[in-house]
Amino acid sequence: MKKQLLTPNSSLLTDNICRGRKPVLDLITKTPERCAKLLIANNVRPPFLDELLQAARNANIIYQIVAPEALDKISGGERHQGVVCKLTEAKPLELEEFLKTLDDKAPALLVILDHVEDPHNLGAVIRSAEAGGASGMIFAKRRSAVPNDTVIKTSAGASLRLPLIQVANITRTIERLKNSNFWIVGLSEKSELSIWNEKPPARCALVVGAEGSRISRLVIENCDMLMKIPIKTDGAGSLNASVAAALGIFEWTRNFFNQS
Amino acid sequence: MKKQLLTPNSSLLTDNICRGRKPVLDLITKTPERCAKLLIANNVRPPFLDELLQAARNANIIYQIVAPEALDKISGGERHQGVVCKLTEAKPLELEEFLKTLDDKAPALLVILDHVEDPHNLGAVIRSAEAGGASGMIFAKRRSAVPNDTVIKTSAGASLRLPLIQVANITRTIERLKNSNFWIVGLSEKSELSIWNEKPPARCALVVGAEGSRISRLVIENCDMLMKIPIKTDGAGSLNASVAAALGIFEWTRNFFNQS
Repeated sequence: MKKQLLTPNSSLLTDNICRGRKPVLDLITKTPERCAKLLIANNVRPPFLDELLQAARNANIIYQIVAPEALDKISGGERHQGVVCKLTEAKPLELEEFLKTLDDKAPALLVILDHVEDPHNLGAVIRSAEAGGASGMIFAKRRSAVPNDTVIKTSAGASLRLPLIQVANITRTIERLKNSNFWIVGLSEKSELSIWNEKPPARCALVVGAEGSRISRLVIENCDMLMKIPIKTDGAGSLNASVAAALGIFEWTRNFFNQS
Repeated sequence: MKKQLLTPNSSLLTDNICRGRKPVLDLITKTPERCAKLLIANNVRPPFLDELLQAARNANIIYQIVAPEALDKISGGERHQGVVCKLTEAKPLELEEFLKTLDDKAPALLVILDHVEDPHNLGAVIRSAEAGGASGMIFAKRRSAVPNDTVIKTSAGASLRLPLIQVANITRTIERLKNSNFWIVGLSEKSELSIWNEKPPARCALVVGAEGSRISRLVIENCDMLMKIPIKTDGAGSLNASVAAALGIFEWTRNFFNQS
């Protein structure tokens, strides 16, 4: 897969910055093509400063030492730890363009988010999707959190590496994916089917809703199958959305890790 | 297991309050014995107000309507959505007392947290541990986040239901658990062994470190086995601590769900 061609839609990066020591260092070392300019507060000290400057030099990234207050302003008051990176414009990623990069027969996992509105949850799911070997993540233009800098940080930078595909309509996207040999698996606590009792499909589009299993009715109706994550409590317990997503993602990974 | 006798150590609930609409409603309906008094801001409106008052009446809980500013003060500025519950004193939970409540032969999962300092991660792990059917969660008195009201909220109330055992020393606790027929499994990304290649032990104490797999050296040396969660990225990806813990927990659940 030509991963370097697949960068997130620029319109998604509302703030168009990456902030914080680890996220910025990850960005510079792993996806330097996304760094337009590095801004470092004048109170950042060695050894971190040395490590950062070395990484910036290795990647030919322009940097500037500024007053901490300048970074406070750019970050809109969010925690930046003295380091902010302005991001380059990225090529928008459309569904059709993305699908062309996939082998249409090999095992592949796509994660579809339906109405996940919390940016922390979005970031956490992107991180798990990347770690679990998903090929990309799809979400609706409306009614979902957008990948801003909170998402970059929560995803530990994964939102800058994993292909993110923004679509107008989840239901129509599902139909399109079926034509590309994907099976659509919705996570729903109301299903009788457990993710552990059936092997997941090799080409799997996993639909995750708000709070992990609340998918909208129309999307539910268009899934090929619904599966639940069995939980063991007396009616009181529940799963966090990002944990439910991770369990679904890694159930696929467990089955196809060595084959794809 | 006599779950009603096992309530969290009162000293752990530093703030001794539960705040927010869903956490408080869950508390009143599921563990009313933990509610000392319910405080409702005078700007809370139906239908939520009716639902809350009905639940409070059903559980014989005393409530009081107060100015929103009073709740701001009690919550120390944290978001309360107009609803705060003062918690009752709880009986401290010691390791020996806890172990007496367990059948010493049946499958059981304990989760041991080593140096997980972020209360959001702590809450998330408690929630997954409860949902995965763990019998309790163990953590050190020092060097760990304490279950405060942020933890109650992040855990969706699970921290009020799952037995939480605070110990002075993790290494000595591990020795004690071995004597109770537990196998100690540490999650470590450095292990060659995958959680998917070996069946987890039926009586399993799962050790989770900061960022999911960084356990201290002394604790590592005392584990019976170390296992990694295989992740599929080119060196860039990683797992969030609470996601790693959930994957470890639910791997046990998948194997022993129907047997315990």
